Amino acid sequence: MELKTLGEFNFIQSIESGTIYDTSTLVCGIGDDCAIYKATKAYDQLVSTDTMVEGVHFSFHYMSPYDVGYRLMTANLSDIAAMGGLPRQVVLSVAAPGHIDTQILNEIYKGIKDQCQKYRVNLIGGDTVSIDGPMVWTITIIGEVPSGKAVLRSGAKPGDVVGVTNYIGYAATGLGALSYNFNGYPMTIIGHQRPEPQIELGQLLRELGVHSMNDISDGLSSELNEIAKASQVSIVIDESLIPLHEETYKLAEALHTNPVDYALLGGEDFQLVFTAPKELSRELEELGAITLIGEVIEGNPIVQSVTKDKDIRLLEAKGYNHFHE
Amino acid sequence: MELKTLGEFNFIQSIESGTIYDTSTLVCGIGDDCAIYKATKAYDQLVSTDTMVEGVHFSFHYMSPYDVGYRLMTANLSDIAAMGGLPRQVVLSVAAPGHIDTQILNEIYKGIKDQCQKYRVNLIGGDTVSIDGPMVWTITIIGEVPSGKAVLRSGAKPGDVVGVTNYIGYAATGLGALSYNFNGYPMTIIGHQRPEPQIELGQLLRELGVHSMNDISDGLSSELNEIAKASQVSIVIDESLIPLHEETYKLAEALHTNPVDYALLGGEDFQLVFTAPKELSRELEELGAITLIGEVIEGNPIVQSVTKDKDIRLLEAKGYNHFHE
Repeated sequence: MELKTLGEFNFIQSIESGTIYDTSTLVCGIGDDCAIYKATKAYDQLVSTDTMVEGVHFSFHYMSPYDVGYRLMTANLSDIAAMGGLPRQVVLSVAAPGHIDTQILNEIYKGIKDQCQKYRVNLIGGDTVSIDGPMVWTITIIGEVPSGKAVLRSGAKPGDVVGVTNYIGYAATGLGALSYNFNGYPMTIIGHQRPEPQIELGQLLRELGVHSMNDISDGLSSELNEIAKASQVSIVIDESLIPLHEETYKLAEALHTNPVDYALLGGEDFQLVFTAPKELSRELEELGAITLIGEVIEGNPIVQSVTKDKDIRLLEAKGYNHFHE
Repeated sequence: MELKTLGEFNFIQSIESGTIYDTSTLVCGIGDDCAIYKATKAYDQLVSTDTMVEGVHFSFHYMSPYDVGYRLMTANLSDIAAMGGLPRQVVLSVAAPGHIDTQILNEIYKGIKDQCQKYRVNLIGGDTVSIDGPMVWTITIIGEVPSGKAVLRSGAKPGDVVGVTNYIGYAATGLGALSYNFNGYPMTIIGHQRPEPQIELGQLLRELGVHSMNDISDGLSSELNEIAKASQVSIVIDESLIPLHEETYKLAEALHTNPVDYALLGGEDFQLVFTAPKELSRELEELGAITLIGEVIEGNPIVQSVTKDKDIRLLEAKGYNHFHE
């Protein structure tokens, strides 16, 4: 059924069920001028907002509507993970053309709600409006972190080790395999379509006492530059230490590309990159999903890497810049 | 300069100044994965989100870009006012086409920031993305209210009086005058272009002990129906008591329309409508900006009015329904 046939109020009613997954912080959900929730005593509040535009941030070419919702929610959750926080509430705004099939909207919502349920986040409000143009989805997420303990990008100190979680370049590998229509990349294709935020690792890293942290949404190179710039330090990493999945090596071989570039330039892994006092190295490695790949030194806010041929190269902040020609 | 020439990062940098107006709740503003703020002890948190789409919710035909930003912010602040709350923080997402003149964006931001400053609200984060289509602006506002004291739509009780703040139908009068290109409507035209949220009155009404409250964004008729439905009560108002501005009478006379219809059906006044125990009547009227216009009775959740000819008519929930044919 088209959205304009169903109508705004009926549509909102149809998606109101299954939106509350943690009643401990909730006072009043969808249905009034505002939603009402409780902040936890002795916790700071975190907030972040992310917008995804059809045709710019997503298409249904390589992703199902369900995956689009899933990944939108992951992107928001990941911002909370990057502070070492716990996600709590989200509000959701969608602008959609009246002729859209509500089945597509329902699938996107299902992806969003399934991620909310997994991470026990309440969907407590939103706005649904019409647009004569592409769909626009905006999620604002609210989370918490013990007071004064949020991990910023600006906390890196000379002498810190640099670490990452799990595999990097994983989502870019899956996207590459999909775009070449290659078989044999099941893990990284799932990694591209349904990435997970590192909520639990983010909290563990915060509790261990890491100095700075970022989530990897724009490629490792760009994220490391953000830390270097915010902290006014220099960062050096060893490319041979970056944890790559075997499918990344396989794709790089098939396409005659440098496997490490998937990690440095490929976006949307939603893994974490952090710096931590060197004396935490053993505890970090005992977490299992952590790889140390470099260190922080005094100097200009730049990022350099040692290549596999033992050359040194400058890693630029080549993040995705909207509106850049 | 076009947005795509300036680039996303330069644009964000250009609008970062003048975003913090109350440092008492702020830990960390724009620039990290999340913004960080403090919740006030013994207060509940309020959140609401509003999206405005170019060509649907605004055009530059009757409003300047500055006014568009001003009113978008007012709409969000008004949702906090309707709960009797205090606004604290906002995050802002904008999707804009690359070819847009950044001067237009800057003017919209100026309208938003001026309202933030007036009500001491911090702009602590956002997202700026490109769209091949109309501009889409989404603001999420976070506010506070003493724990358990938020005024809901669902609290109306039989025996309550029904009241409104200031003039109703004011913005619709201004819009009408503009659309007919009439002279002599200076007050209501300003009311349409730069409406104010009733933050202070909302808090006073909450402190006095009103039972239910709504802000008037879709016309009095629609808002009263929301209260009746949420509270499962019947509401009766006297049309002759609705406070109308002299310009509303003047426009109605010029157009041979019923002046009260501007209040019942016209949107975006951002005044408050509430119900309160009858014994508060005198204290309410002593506030100065309050007019009592009816009462709550037991019965089906409907709204009826007594017309100036002493007829009774049913007031329908004719709010603006996006996607409605």
